[in-house]
Amino acid sequence: MESQIFELQYALDTFYFLICGALVMWMAAGFTMLEAGLVRSKNTVEILTKNIALFATASIMYMVCGYAIMYGGDLFLSGIAGGDTLVEDALAASAENGFGGDSVYSAASDFFFQVVFVATCMSIVSGAVAERMKLWSFLLFAVVMTGVIYPLEGSWTWGGNDVFGLFNLGDMGFSDFAGSGIVHMAGAAAALAGVLLLGSRKGKYGPNGEIRAIPGANLPLAALGTLILWMGWFGFNGGSVLKLGDIASANAVAMVFLNTNAAAAGGAVGALILARIIFGKADLTMLLNGVLAGLVAITAEPSTPSALQATIFGVIAGIIVVLSILALDKIKIDDPVGAISVHGVVGLFGLLIVPITNPASTFIGQIVGAATIFAWVFIASLVVWSIIKLVIGLRISEEDEYEGADIAECGMEAYPEFIR
Amino acid sequence: MESQIFELQYALDTFYFLICGALVMWMAAGFTMLEAGLVRSKNTVEILTKNIALFATASIMYMVCGYAIMYGGDLFLSGIAGGDTLVEDALAASAENGFGGDSVYSAASDFFFQVVFVATCMSIVSGAVAERMKLWSFLLFAVVMTGVIYPLEGSWTWGGNDVFGLFNLGDMGFSDFAGSGIVHMAGAAAALAGVLLLGSRKGKYGPNGEIRAIPGANLPLAALGTLILWMGWFGFNGGSVLKLGDIASANAVAMVFLNTNAAAAGGAVGALILARIIFGKADLTMLLNGVLAGLVAITAEPSTPSALQATIFGVIAGIIVVLSILALDKIKIDDPVGAISVHGVVGLFGLLIVPITNPASTFIGQIVGAATIFAWVFIASLVVWSIIKLVIGLRISEEDEYEGADIAECGMEAYPEFIR
Amino acid sequence: MESQIFELQYALDTFYFLICGALVMWMAAGFTMLEAGLVRSKNTVEILTKNIALFATASIMYMVCGYAIMYGGDLFLSGIAGGDTLVEDALAASAENGFGGDSVYSAASDFFFQVVFVATCMSIVSGAVAERMKLWSFLLFAVVMTGVIYPLEGSWTWGGNDVFGLFNLGDMGFSDFAGSGIVHMAGAAAALAGVLLLGSRKGKYGPNGEIRAIPGANLPLAALGTLILWMGWFGFNGGSVLKLGDIASANAVAMVFLNTNAAAAGGAVGALILARIIFGKADLTMLLNGVLAGLVAITAEPSTPSALQATIFGVIAGIIVVLSILALDKIKIDDPVGAISVHGVVGLFGLLIVPITNPASTFIGQIVGAATIFAWVFIASLVVWSIIKLVIGLRISEEDEYEGADIAECGMEAYPEFIR
Repeated sequence: MESQIFELQYALDTFYFLICGALVMWMAAGFTMLEAGLVRSKNTVEILTKNIALFATASIMYMVCGYAIMYGGDLFLSGIAGGDTLVEDALAASAENGFGGDSVYSAASDFFFQVVFVATCMSIVSGAVAERMKLWSFLLFAVVMTGVIYPLEGSWTWGGNDVFGLFNLGDMGFSDFAGSGIVHMAGAAAALAGVLLLGSRKGKYGPNGEIRAIPGANLPLAALGTLILWMGWFGFNGGSVLKLGDIASANAVAMVFLNTNAAAAGGAVGALILARIIFGKADLTMLLNGVLAGLVAITAEPSTPSALQATIFGVIAGIIVVLSILALDKIKIDDPVGAISVHGVVGLFGLLIVPITNPASTFIGQIVGAATIFAWVFIASLVVWSIIKLVIGLRISEEDEYEGADIAECGMEAYPEFIR
Repeated sequence: MESQIFELQYALDTFYFLICGALVMWMAAGFTMLEAGLVRSKNTVEILTKNIALFATASIMYMVCGYAIMYGGDLFLSGIAGGDTLVEDALAASAENGFGGDSVYSAASDFFFQVVFVATCMSIVSGAVAERMKLWSFLLFAVVMTGVIYPLEGSWTWGGNDVFGLFNLGDMGFSDFAGSGIVHMAGAAAALAGVLLLGSRKGKYGPNGEIRAIPGANLPLAALGTLILWMGWFGFNGGSVLKLGDIASANAVAMVFLNTNAAAAGGAVGALILARIIFGKADLTMLLNGVLAGLVAITAEPSTPSALQATIFGVIAGIIVVLSILALDKIKIDDPVGAISVHGVVGLFGLLIVPITNPASTFIGQIVGAATIFAWVFIASLVVWSIIKLVIGLRISEEDEYEGADIAECGMEAYPEFIR
Repeated sequence: MESQIFELQYALDTFYFLICGALVMWMAAGFTMLEAGLVRSKNTVEILTKNIALFATASIMYMVCGYAIMYGGDLFLSGIAGGDTLVEDALAASAENGFGGDSVYSAASDFFFQVVFVATCMSIVSGAVAERMKLWSFLLFAVVMTGVIYPLEGSWTWGGNDVFGLFNLGDMGFSDFAGSGIVHMAGAAAALAGVLLLGSRKGKYGPNGEIRAIPGANLPLAALGTLILWMGWFGFNGGSVLKLGDIASANAVAMVFLNTNAAAAGGAVGALILARIIFGKADLTMLLNGVLAGLVAITAEPSTPSALQATIFGVIAGIIVVLSILALDKIKIDDPVGAISVHGVVGLFGLLIVPITNPASTFIGQIVGAATIFAWVFIASLVVWSIIKLVIGLRISEEDEYEGADIAECGMEAYPEFIR
């Protein structure tokens, strides 16, 4: 009977992992709709194509080598196959782990939960380089990012390996529960490297340095994307407890759901009110970025804050994201969807507030971890983007940019009956 | 081992609650898309902003005081914090409750499940007052509605408290399983109060009393919203069993899923056929309202009807909603999305049919409960709306209404490239 | 205590079934958005109406008689009612089945999971006949398809009955895990019969045999629909293990999630690259069809392949679907959304690859099964479509087709402010 209880716990934890993974996969739809809503109609098909193709690329590359780099195991996931082998592994694990011991669940469910995180990281990039980057150059970068750059960084953090054999982030008190830094800031670092090499969209900044707003073509899609991300984030953070099947774990998962929601709500309010003060109106795109900022900020530690703390962290994140978007525009870093601010600047903020509620982390550890992640991903990405730029180029031609990436890259229009 | 079984049951029930809560949160996207699809393009950004901001407001206000008013406990949810305190509470509960006893699950999961209900209630209001109410006036109302009006009403029903210390609805045989009255009719009552003070949209009713259709700008979004609500409702009703982890509870949850789907299907067919008879065509907006009507009607008691009964209740609800929408238009109550009919009139119908299949409820109890909920929410809302009207006004200027709330309130357009 | 463990397993398996069912229901939104995005704006309201009405029709007809035909039991689901009867059945089942025995879960959850499959099958039809079929003729067909044609076919496969009392597909080594053939190819067979009787859309093929592209009006919706289907498919395939609550079952469910994702990713890459080679551009609609093709192909056996095999099967499916769409256009079978290629041709491919990884199936069995399903559904559908054609007609008038089905059939426009 003891073993039957273990089997049930194993099944429940596996199911919890799979459902959370499905919610994270759903975030791909969130990023896709968000970005499709915030670009101009002439670049919509291309951003849809990029988002779906990057998810496929991430799924394949992480299977080919990414998972093995990050957590060990065989290339091509060859240790995880259908049939009975998984059961034997699980029964062996059962012998080692009693009830309430380490997480024990299906290896396949672990891969599934991890692979959707890689795709999330890559989704962050597509928004920042939107409306001007060549589709195939982007996908080439996605191959390296999801196959090597992210997995190596992940091996130093969640994988527990030493950074290039030199020092161990975990030992230094670095803690990043669900990936404010490991996933979100990493994606933003790769995006920033790309944006710096790519330059701004034609017409974004005037000859006298004035900043011109380039409004998104379909704001209901952007709102939908944000709400999808809000929902999917329950899986992103909630699944990162890694275990559900005992009282302590279940409470932790519940607290994570509660705080994830509270931080999103706080971010919405913070950004809405600050934008009202600055612009005099209720700015929807800032509101959406506020929601996402709240979510990113709480991601580094959603289990230890109280609901009130989570809300306050969200409010601050919502304020930071508005200021960051304005500041990046000032220094002419053109990010059509605000991804670098939402995931990068606020991702860093999320890392820095962990020690406030989680005594197991240290402020120094958070700084070193953030610097390590940023330095590695930014430099590696800069190298990869540079090579791609040299070999096939990063940017579509000026004419194609004027006509729109959709016709140039995909040969079709997103809304053929609505415009012109 | 006994305690391990309890721990598993606790974890399963908590997870079930969280997943159902996430589905209810997803209903926010449903309302947002439904309303964004049914308003004109010039008022779309504003309705998106309202819906996301109201969800954030509800999340915060229910944390600040709403949950404490409704179910007791501390303000700011201070009794629910991360860390180990929840485990101690749970172990204490474990000692009191054996297997199959009262629901025992994480307190944080309970809050999460309840808070998304508050937001649902408030979402109902935004549709009815769309296209003419000031954004900040609406959000101010949302603060009071989600912080006080709904929680007080909820304390008399699901909270079990006496109504102003006078009488107890539960003792009178009032039963409202998942909230046809407590959530849906309550939202509609608040909406009706707002609409009465606000008046109809310019141009909705002609000088000779003729009713002019104001078509929604984006019907695919409205259909998407309805399908999102259909999906989310499985969490809304399914989670309201409050317990999953034994055979009787699991069967009840399954029956609730089945009947929720059956009623939605019935509502679709009822509204589709009646609209065909009246208008001679297959009216999509009536079909969508029929689906929602079926869902609202079954919400008061989705566990005791047979699938056939649930379908029939749905069909009747679908018929009622078409007739109600036509009738409200006749008496010039302008409700752009039909929210008062769907959630108010059909919510009442849902309450009244409970005694047919649930012998624990009484017809008198249902009447008294419905009257109590309606009277309280309507009157309290009327007072709050009136105060807001006096102090900052409810309605945007005639010029702003003509130009659209989007430019006036939010300074941007939903589809800047598509129109004009 | 033994029985408490059983109760927990029962509850977990029921919950797993319900959540997977909710994800399959969500696929209805996927088909609706996909089809609404791929038709012209003048036929959008009608396709929305058809999709929602067919889901309602399927829900009702499968309750009335479909489930009884497919799996036995009473008409109108009268054996499944609210209250205590389900518990008695479950306790009886508990006596028969020990831990790890046959699947034991709520009968209501079984119906819920099955009914959403019927709707999926019917959803496939609506896309292929879009833009020219009368709405009420379509719904009449849906009544017969979901009430009789699909259930009878299902009784021979998942129901285990002999085909017209003659031979047994299971005994011949036919295996179709989640329905590449039973659901997807069946839907495509019904669609093909309809398309043959209906003819192509006006203007699709020129007088000299040239093929004219008719672009969809709203590609973000099509992309959203595909991502919804991708997510929902985890429930479609994952739930088809039918059991979760022990180690072996949990591992199988996890492997199914992993492989379902891998095949979708492979399909995306296969179609993207082949379309690039053929057309010289990154074709979004082919990419979307590639994703769906990967999903359909793995559906017949998602549990036994390795992740690499699943990816390769997906790549091949993505290649097949592009070639099939081009081929069907050559022979002037007009299928606006590519449903016959995605679900029919690739569904057959999915059946044929099962023996590669699942030794319990035979190649002969797969051929006989595919032929049986196709022959029955195609011929029965042809008869039903023909009768409908004779009695009320299948096709809208040439004038209505020119003006659009929306005004003709539904009396409203999908985007009244965007066009003209």
